[in-house]
Amino acid sequence: MDALACGGTLVFDKAQSHYLARVLRRKIDDQVRLFNGRDGEYLATISQTSKQKLTLSVDEQTRPFKPAPDIWLLFAPIKPKRNVFSVEKATELGAALIQPVITARTTAKINMDKMQAHTIEAAEQTERLDLPCLGEPQKLADLLADWDETRTLIFADEAGDAKPAAKTLAKIKAPAAILIGPEGGFTEAERQTLRAKFYCTPISLGPRILRADTAAAATLALWQAVSGDW
Amino acid sequence: MDALACGGTLVFDKAQSHYLARVLRRKIDDQVRLFNGRDGEYLATISQTSKQKLTLSVDEQTRPFKPAPDIWLLFAPIKPKRNVFSVEKATELGAALIQPVITARTTAKINMDKMQAHTIEAAEQTERLDLPCLGEPQKLADLLADWDETRTLIFADEAGDAKPAAKTLAKIKAPAAILIGPEGGFTEAERQTLRAKFYCTPISLGPRILRADTAAAATLALWQAVSGDW
Repeated sequence: MDALACGGTLVFDKAQSHYLARVLRRKIDDQVRLFNGRDGEYLATISQTSKQKLTLSVDEQTRPFKPAPDIWLLFAPIKPKRNVFSVEKATELGAALIQPVITARTTAKINMDKMQAHTIEAAEQTERLDLPCLGEPQKLADLLADWDETRTLIFADEAGDAKPAAKTLAKIKAPAAILIGPEGGFTEAERQTLRAKFYCTPISLGPRILRADTAAAATLALWQAVSGDW
Repeated sequence: MDALACGGTLVFDKAQSHYLARVLRRKIDDQVRLFNGRDGEYLATISQTSKQKLTLSVDEQTRPFKPAPDIWLLFAPIKPKRNVFSVEKATELGAALIQPVITARTTAKINMDKMQAHTIEAAEQTERLDLPCLGEPQKLADLLADWDETRTLIFADEAGDAKPAAKTLAKIKAPAAILIGPEGGFTEAERQTLRAKFYCTPISLGPRILRADTAAAATLALWQAVSGDW
């Protein structure tokens, strides 16, 4: 979307106009709230409509832009409904990037177009003024090969002597990323590889085994509470 | 279930025997893992089977019983799939009691039999050795009228000056309860009532509006991490 500023004019293309006029049933002189992921939220009035386009005049800023902290969620796809859950919750909980990761025990596929729709719906619901980036699925080895070492990689390690989550996460500031394994967890070789990286920090999520989608939401909420913007 | 102890014998009734023999297809000399919510986990061997009953001999304890902390989740029912989510996640995250609460803006019904099935499934998945209690839906006013004032009531208060969650929850030890409102939140009258109780503590869950089910899982995870058994 173009830049948003008070007094400005926006012209929506056919797809955007269709959504606003037909799906949301907005008419001339109706007010809508707009955001583009960088300028904040604005109130705008629909000033002209046609089948091909729709013109809006931007009235006033209703909320300034405040970016979510630079925290990523990397997760191994599992069942479709649980992937939807992870993506929806990560959007609500303020992830900046959501990236499916293919690990040794990952067998599930993931439909990224569907995931995109869920991030948009969740961002609107949560009144977030930006969308998380959605990365295409990538193999764990490739991800680690390209890793920016200034970004701490937090991984939930069920099978070890990892330290309790709250105190550990309180020391990990952005940029950071949370890595959640598939059902069945990481292989021993993956765990060793991860633990050998200086930028990797294992954490324990308590005495009960959490499903992957629960672990994703819990870790993200916890990080936001102790090191993010809560 | 009867008490579990090494060297003991258990006789399962018709329903339990049917489940083990027909649904799980276990036969004589098969070993199964048993727990009853108070004695821990035991390995037992099926020693006799018939249509009416099934006898097991208890071999050894595989895990001691460790009760989950005394934390409750009280939530206003919303859509069925989101209620399932709240109940499943609360079970995984170690809630001792899960109780639907009817608030002024609660319009949804909840099927408690279905919820019971979800707590059992989630407890098995998470290897919890007890089940959370499931309370029948109750009106918020009735719940507060009977409140045990030694139990701190934590409520997610979107519309106020509530303090950040992590530091506040770190000071709240068990027994405690987390109260999550419905879509649309609590009414102003409910908020005032809650805030006037000395045992009530409002918390803020950050700058993004969370769905009720997200707020439930996030608050419970956070409490377990800073004051529970993580």
